[in-house]
Amino acid sequence: MTHDSLTHDSLTIGVDIGGTKIAAGVVTASGQIWARTMRATDPADPDQIEAAVADAVAELVAQYPEVTAVGAAAAGFVGPDRTTMLFAPNIAWRNHPLGARLAERIGLPVVIENDANAAAWAEYRFGNGRGAANMVMLTLGTGLGGAVICDGHLVRGAFGAAAELGHMTIVPDGHYCGCGQEGCWEAYSSGTALAKLARNVAVADPEGARPMLAIADGEPLTGAHVTAAARQGDPVATGLLVRFGRYLGLGVATLAAVVDPGLVVVGGGIAAAAGDLILPAAREGFLAKLSGRGFRGELDIVTAALANDAGLIGAADSARTLDPAVAVAGAAVPVPA
Amino acid sequence: MTHDSLTHDSLTIGVDIGGTKIAAGVVTASGQIWARTMRATDPADPDQIEAAVADAVAELVAQYPEVTAVGAAAAGFVGPDRTTMLFAPNIAWRNHPLGARLAERIGLPVVIENDANAAAWAEYRFGNGRGAANMVMLTLGTGLGGAVICDGHLVRGAFGAAAELGHMTIVPDGHYCGCGQEGCWEAYSSGTALAKLARNVAVADPEGARPMLAIADGEPLTGAHVTAAARQGDPVATGLLVRFGRYLGLGVATLAAVVDPGLVVVGGGIAAAAGDLILPAAREGFLAKLSGRGFRGELDIVTAALANDAGLIGAADSARTLDPAVAVAGAAVPVPA
Amino acid sequence: MTHDSLTHDSLTIGVDIGGTKIAAGVVTASGQIWARTMRATDPADPDQIEAAVADAVAELVAQYPEVTAVGAAAAGFVGPDRTTMLFAPNIAWRNHPLGARLAERIGLPVVIENDANAAAWAEYRFGNGRGAANMVMLTLGTGLGGAVICDGHLVRGAFGAAAELGHMTIVPDGHYCGCGQEGCWEAYSSGTALAKLARNVAVADPEGARPMLAIADGEPLTGAHVTAAARQGDPVATGLLVRFGRYLGLGVATLAAVVDPGLVVVGGGIAAAAGDLILPAAREGFLAKLSGRGFRGELDIVTAALANDAGLIGAADSARTLDPAVAVAGAAVPVPA
Amino acid sequence: MTHDSLTHDSLTIGVDIGGTKIAAGVVTASGQIWARTMRATDPADPDQIEAAVADAVAELVAQYPEVTAVGAAAAGFVGPDRTTMLFAPNIAWRNHPLGARLAERIGLPVVIENDANAAAWAEYRFGNGRGAANMVMLTLGTGLGGAVICDGHLVRGAFGAAAELGHMTIVPDGHYCGCGQEGCWEAYSSGTALAKLARNVAVADPEGARPMLAIADGEPLTGAHVTAAARQGDPVATGLLVRFGRYLGLGVATLAAVVDPGLVVVGGGIAAAAGDLILPAAREGFLAKLSGRGFRGELDIVTAALANDAGLIGAADSARTLDPAVAVAGAAVPVPA
Repeated sequence: MTHDSLTHDSLTIGVDIGGTKIAAGVVTASGQIWARTMRATDPADPDQIEAAVADAVAELVAQYPEVTAVGAAAAGFVGPDRTTMLFAPNIAWRNHPLGARLAERIGLPVVIENDANAAAWAEYRFGNGRGAANMVMLTLGTGLGGAVICDGHLVRGAFGAAAELGHMTIVPDGHYCGCGQEGCWEAYSSGTALAKLARNVAVADPEGARPMLAIADGEPLTGAHVTAAARQGDPVATGLLVRFGRYLGLGVATLAAVVDPGLVVVGGGIAAAAGDLILPAAREGFLAKLSGRGFRGELDIVTAALANDAGLIGAADSARTLDPAVAVAGAAVPVPA
Repeated sequence: MTHDSLTHDSLTIGVDIGGTKIAAGVVTASGQIWARTMRATDPADPDQIEAAVADAVAELVAQYPEVTAVGAAAAGFVGPDRTTMLFAPNIAWRNHPLGARLAERIGLPVVIENDANAAAWAEYRFGNGRGAANMVMLTLGTGLGGAVICDGHLVRGAFGAAAELGHMTIVPDGHYCGCGQEGCWEAYSSGTALAKLARNVAVADPEGARPMLAIADGEPLTGAHVTAAARQGDPVATGLLVRFGRYLGLGVATLAAVVDPGLVVVGGGIAAAAGDLILPAAREGFLAKLSGRGFRGELDIVTAALANDAGLIGAADSARTLDPAVAVAGAAVPVPA
Repeated sequence: MTHDSLTHDSLTIGVDIGGTKIAAGVVTASGQIWARTMRATDPADPDQIEAAVADAVAELVAQYPEVTAVGAAAAGFVGPDRTTMLFAPNIAWRNHPLGARLAERIGLPVVIENDANAAAWAEYRFGNGRGAANMVMLTLGTGLGGAVICDGHLVRGAFGAAAELGHMTIVPDGHYCGCGQEGCWEAYSSGTALAKLARNVAVADPEGARPMLAIADGEPLTGAHVTAAARQGDPVATGLLVRFGRYLGLGVATLAAVVDPGLVVVGGGIAAAAGDLILPAAREGFLAKLSGRGFRGELDIVTAALANDAGLIGAADSARTLDPAVAVAGAAVPVPA
Repeated sequence: MTHDSLTHDSLTIGVDIGGTKIAAGVVTASGQIWARTMRATDPADPDQIEAAVADAVAELVAQYPEVTAVGAAAAGFVGPDRTTMLFAPNIAWRNHPLGARLAERIGLPVVIENDANAAAWAEYRFGNGRGAANMVMLTLGTGLGGAVICDGHLVRGAFGAAAELGHMTIVPDGHYCGCGQEGCWEAYSSGTALAKLARNVAVADPEGARPMLAIADGEPLTGAHVTAAARQGDPVATGLLVRFGRYLGLGVATLAAVVDPGLVVVGGGIAAAAGDLILPAAREGFLAKLSGRGFRGELDIVTAALANDAGLIGAADSARTLDPAVAVAGAAVPVPA
């Protein structure tokens, strides 16, 4: 393998390793996906996951033998070498040399990336974050994930644990978070948090919650029910999304104080479904808490462009742009030039 | 001037522009100060400040003509070009081309750096932050300043306003801050905050505050009185410093969630005077709020090494390591090769 | 029945209606229980509950025919007439004429009292609150119940909903409460809250929680495990009880600002088991938040004396001291003179 | 004078002792003021104040010799005997036998009442609180004063310090209060708090604050400027009053949890000037925090009726309805046995 083989013209493969499935694709230097495949996985069986990744990659390499490298994204803390999975919340990886093991199976250089980092990188390179060298990505899913790009570089941190943005404390002694702490941003701004907020309103104000409950039709309230009710003009549901947005903006203001991004890209299911209802309140909440207003630039908050492909695309591009000194070269087979 | 002229072997000058005086010094590539000078300045007269800087630099260049560049540090927002002072809190600079104006007067390349950034850079290069490529500096003075180094680079942000750490919100609807916002970290963890805390305790619990008041001897309570009382074993004063430390740790936990530093270096007058009384509580407060404990590394919190010279040394080193494409070359006289 | 028959020398019956059982007893004017009985009840069947109460009372009246009145205590909102159960959390009573229905079955005057009010009244008359005409009772059980006595009178409120002390907001946007609100005192100072706090610490700091988890031996952590670990000197468990106590004191300070009690009597399981570990921190937390310290009296915080009998005794005494104009006279049989 | 002379048909005198002046008036049993007078006073000279009260009373007694008793209202803690001023914030009274000293000078029975208590009593008897036996009065002046009436009786507390409602903690670690504590209700809901809020917004968002600043015309912003701007449709000023109202409602919800009033009467300058702008948000904030909604009555929030005369009228009526055993008899004439 030579440095030149990792050019921007080359094709790379991105793999998004989720809890129960992996998605893989061949990605061009301009972020296009030329081929895709998927595999089901068992989060309790790391060996099976690695075999499935290798199998999916082999399928794609068979179609595009000119592929030069592989990037794999997964939830968890990734070591500064970008090959070791220090800790994963959903898979039994603890200080696991994932990159080296995959490279051995695959026979190509492999780089490991945190999934939120990968998605952010994709948005930065090809999505709504293009050109924003100082950018924060927030992913509003079950939890609140994130990534920070400073001066065109992903911030990974001393322990590979940077951009655990959902665990910034925004309310001292506030809501319990899944991490055991109190007042984490994720406990106010995530799908789980929105559902919990709605369910508690249904207890505290059953009359006011009636339209949401009617939509839920006997199911436990979710963010989707809140959004649907808000779209029908229900003031309580609308109020919940405004409150949700304000918390989002509160955390963004703290991010502005730390890394001063020019842009915040908000992805994840809630952003896709209700971004138009949430983001104005988020911006209002952000501005209301911004220090030095009038003497400094004010960031924009936008929704993400790439949806579920962001992780795959970002991982692939991360592999393309990696420093060859860092990549874990595949040992088994010669790397195609 | 060639790129080679800016080698690590070269001497540079650092200038620390304060509210009422400037300190300048010739600094070696290993952070030693070989010569110093000072000038009094008038914060209301930007021209006089620039003239004083030029005069001080000229005095030093006369001694060390081999000086190749000048770095100037001042409080405020610095543009991404590192020559424009976007906004300064104490001096009437608004989008002020400070670097270009100084370069014209001085005849050497000039780089402008935020003062907290400069101090952090000095600690990172020569002080207690050596080797900590992911580091946060906190300066506990009248306010709470800070700087963030990620992967060996200062984080400056999209608008030059990164690392306004004192304005992270840590208590929603909390204490008023000088910036007009509520609940800023600076309103809990700064010299001003500590004095205000002590003065309020003196109102709420006059009996308990008696030892501190005895030390203050009629003067308004300050952090120094609190520290002195704590050193004499006064439990109320000790409790105030513990509370102060806990707030410090609370903010550090949020920083860990965002940029995951391996080290936090705490400077400023309070750290110098009472670091041993405050930092254990800060660490305790940090650990109590850290998410993912046991699955990730835990940063250290240490005091700074360089005291009042940090800004000067860091500015000088910043000039040495600057990208020559960025530096504002002096126009008036040829730059010494 | 004449007014004179309701003297302090007379015997009355107190009934404590819980979720799954009732306890009844014959109580003297000095608060002694001369006879007791119990019945199992079905919270879903109000008729069965009333029949069980009547049956238990009949058993006791057979032993002490000189009984002149009955007081029944239950959780919920009681109307100002002290006969209507406006709302009960655990039993299907909604604007339910409980007193009248019981009086008809029993043939004696019946007064209904909120259970926390009854317990408080017992403590005020015969327990650790004797002589404290301005007193607050807090019951730390699964939830946080309470009662307020001002100038020797129970405060019942305009809607019978006074002293829902567990639902004072002490942390805006704080922990969710069973009532659907956020930041209620009960969500910080109750058995449920203590268990939740411990379980979250076990997630956030598994190493620190090890001694508590060892005691729990596989069971979910409860307040009892925390207390047991604290008694063995475990610093994390001790810290949890101190934090618990501080929240208790925080709420007490707000009570002092509203009704200025001279005494707070703390009952319930946690108080009985861990009062010595909690109350010093509660007092410290109270004093730390007390306005006007040094210019006003400072209340005492003590544990309750009467344990599980408090509700029964207080209900009985409430019946004894009731205004005969208020009591719901039994219609079916002549009242014994 | 006989006991019978203290009937509801009798005339009494009410005296409102402020910081720099006293207002006195002859008040009928239906709350009408038949005669008035005033005196300037020196808060630093308790003797002069007493002489001035006596002088004013003498002037009125000369007109209405049938006056039977005097009630005097002042800010501070009043002992349970209703004659001793335990502590006053503005006058140098510490455990001062004010009632006895005035009675000696005046020759009539004198009762002392806390000023907020007196105002509340007036509203309860003759103003917008008529018939609300469970009522809370809030006075939004420079500070936030209050009074609590339970079951038709003023709650005075064990130490005479009840209803220091402005010092309920509503935001832990929140705004500093004049009492030295943090997060007191008064620090969010008072004239001082509103002015401080506006002045900080002017720093944080100078552009948004421009309409308010234009009205202030160089003067420091006050609540009056905020109200004036809001009346002109300024969204920032309106937002401040809404936020102010929400804090008001937050505290009212805690009061509902403690004493369950049927009515909250809001007096003081801000209520008079901007009640229509504030009270809807207060009600909304109250309902948003009310536990048990739908299962309990919901209090009303109304403005006060009696304005500046409330203290005088309430003090007079308090004297009329006092228990003669409690009143401090004047020494000049024999007290009826």
